Amino acid sequence: MTLNRQSTPGADTKAPTRPRLFDKHGIDNYILHGSKAKVDERVDIGYDEKSGYVYWLPNAKTPPFSCKIEDPAKGSKLGGLKSFTEYKIHAQISNGRVVSRRYKQFEWLHEQLVNKFRFICVPPLPGKQIAGRFENEFIEERRRQLELWLNRICHHPVLCASFPVQHFVTCELTEKNNKDWKAGKRKSEKDELREAAWLHCVTHTQSNLTEAQIATQIDAFAQQQPGLETHLKNLNQGLIKYLERHAEIYKPDMQRLGELFSKVFIALQTDTSTSGNQELSLSVSKISASFQGIAELYKTKGSESVRNFNERIQEYIGLLACFPLILNIQRNASECIKSVQQRGPTATPDFSGAIHRGQVFNYVVLAEINFFQKDKVNDLNLYLKSLLHEQIQFYENITVELRAAAATFD
Amino acid sequence: MTLNRQSTPGADTKAPTRPRLFDKHGIDNYILHGSKAKVDERVDIGYDEKSGYVYWLPNAKTPPFSCKIEDPAKGSKLGGLKSFTEYKIHAQISNGRVVSRRYKQFEWLHEQLVNKFRFICVPPLPGKQIAGRFENEFIEERRRQLELWLNRICHHPVLCASFPVQHFVTCELTEKNNKDWKAGKRKSEKDELREAAWLHCVTHTQSNLTEAQIATQIDAFAQQQPGLETHLKNLNQGLIKYLERHAEIYKPDMQRLGELFSKVFIALQTDTSTSGNQELSLSVSKISASFQGIAELYKTKGSESVRNFNERIQEYIGLLACFPLILNIQRNASECIKSVQQRGPTATPDFSGAIHRGQVFNYVVLAEINFFQKDKVNDLNLYLKSLLHEQIQFYENITVELRAAAATFD
Repeated sequence: MTLNRQSTPGADTKAPTRPRLFDKHGIDNYILHGSKAKVDERVDIGYDEKSGYVYWLPNAKTPPFSCKIEDPAKGSKLGGLKSFTEYKIHAQISNGRVVSRRYKQFEWLHEQLVNKFRFICVPPLPGKQIAGRFENEFIEERRRQLELWLNRICHHPVLCASFPVQHFVTCELTEKNNKDWKAGKRKSEKDELREAAWLHCVTHTQSNLTEAQIATQIDAFAQQQPGLETHLKNLNQGLIKYLERHAEIYKPDMQRLGELFSKVFIALQTDTSTSGNQELSLSVSKISASFQGIAELYKTKGSESVRNFNERIQEYIGLLACFPLILNIQRNASECIKSVQQRGPTATPDFSGAIHRGQVFNYVVLAEINFFQKDKVNDLNLYLKSLLHEQIQFYENITVELRAAAATFD
Repeated sequence: MTLNRQSTPGADTKAPTRPRLFDKHGIDNYILHGSKAKVDERVDIGYDEKSGYVYWLPNAKTPPFSCKIEDPAKGSKLGGLKSFTEYKIHAQISNGRVVSRRYKQFEWLHEQLVNKFRFICVPPLPGKQIAGRFENEFIEERRRQLELWLNRICHHPVLCASFPVQHFVTCELTEKNNKDWKAGKRKSEKDELREAAWLHCVTHTQSNLTEAQIATQIDAFAQQQPGLETHLKNLNQGLIKYLERHAEIYKPDMQRLGELFSKVFIALQTDTSTSGNQELSLSVSKISASFQGIAELYKTKGSESVRNFNERIQEYIGLLACFPLILNIQRNASECIKSVQQRGPTATPDFSGAIHRGQVFNYVVLAEINFFQKDKVNDLNLYLKSLLHEQIQFYENITVELRAAAATFD
């Protein structure tokens, strides 16, 4: 155990058969007694012996997929009394079709996933907004962020194959035909394989990893996680400030330079007799236009590139923020297993079952950590590369503007 | 007469033989009575018939030249009791030698020129500074601005050939040997060909321009001048603000981004097990370095290019600011000549001399306006071109920084 993950003092002295007060997710109870829920789904954890790598095996029938969200449109209900924005969801799967979804249906999906998958990172939905929620800029921002969110879900080997996700991306739903949707909703909401009971459907390949090795890997991540979360949050805040500067300072400064040169142009062109003065005036007018163009670039390319990057960082912060709870449950579960082991086989009715269930849980946590870590490297590489390339383009476009003005002097 | 240059009500009713109260520069007196000063120098005004262009003829013996000011060094006097900065002046003339000058000697030169040449633009000296005047940055700024100032003087066809300028750029002066310097100073200070009397030494080529045509040209400039002065002043102020932003916002913003990425780098590199994570960490560390590099660019190239341009604009504002006084004197002189003409030959003792002197004065003003206008086009072309090229380089250097970071992803 690391300093970050101190055990609760006195926890060991309580009877492990009685669920502890903070065992809100029923993990102790599940480890000790298992679950009677019907298992009609299956999640597999693989193990790569060479690299010692524990990972989610993708569901053979429903592997991870991508989604597009397009054409947000204003819809209405009850003869126009209630209005909302509908998004067209296009899942890139064989039986994929375009379905319409409202924000409240995203909320439903989010809730289902959070309830069912306590030990998997389900990132928070981009926040709900009441005021100005039909403004075009907001709707487009919401569309982008929902697309990021849904893709995060659909790229997860476990989440993507779950019933709520499949129902969400495939079930047709209109005001007139909502029977199937409602039936699926009911089915999902009655699902018993949720929270700790869901562990019941997880199978893991035997590995040669010791319990201690698994604990070390989980601990290593638990130590890294807070630092990364903190510094991505700081980066996120810093970029928000930087974006505000684009709107409040960078762009207005360039605009102001454009205006100042434009006034000089007007003053200069009154001199119609000095040789070369009309050419000079035109050059100054072009310089003015260039600075106006640069102001526009700050508003468009310059800002958009930073904003896109920052939305992805924001999403990562949401992902990272899922871990403290998972790691906390894992810490409790470890205490529980340790206590079972210390008391020995005679003290716990289903001793070997409890040890096995504890092991499965640790594999689940490690698979989820490893999935996150691998994605982190791929995603951050991609995001940073895009940021740099877009910023390079932005500054190149600035030089294009300035070169256009410089060319008038040749 | 334009609206901008209204005549003083009632001015015509006064006896023109009595110098008016605001005839501080003795122009009316000179026009009416001439001068008894000994004429031992000569200034010529040329006329290009094809273009109708009135201009200063360069002095054949002493044409305009360039100056370099180098190696500002701390000097002292009275055994170290008084310390000052000495600049090495290197005039690019045949008998040129390197001479040492202090700021107070620049002040002396400025005063001599302003007194002697009331009708020529002598730009103000870059301001005196008491506190911090030995700081390197200030000394270098002062050197640059004095060099601009001295070159402006030495490129003027009339000023460059004047005794005070020649004395200033050639006379050797050390603490031990200051006889020649003092003799030249006395000579210049006793010079009688100053203010209106200086007009005595001006000769102009006969032209086919009518009085009205000359007045129209002068008036046209008088109308343009305030607008250009105002808008160059606004540009100057805007650029000062923009430069402050470089120090207060642009550079710190980039530095802050560098620090934020540096912290993310530190957080990332704690993950030593995920494949590709060390490469990602190094890329992030390079991004951090790139933003630090961009911060530095804002401080150096970015700022310097704007500052250099703005120092030149500042100098132009000083030049432009000389004109209102000259134009005001010219307006008074016009009133005086008009009055002489209205009263006819019998009312003024030296009638034809007065008309001639009035004409010479108008040629002087027009030659000075035309010299300014031509320089304006050349100079602004040059300054703007430099600004653009340096700004292009600056933004290109930013892309170089970003490309260095982007390359780590390949």
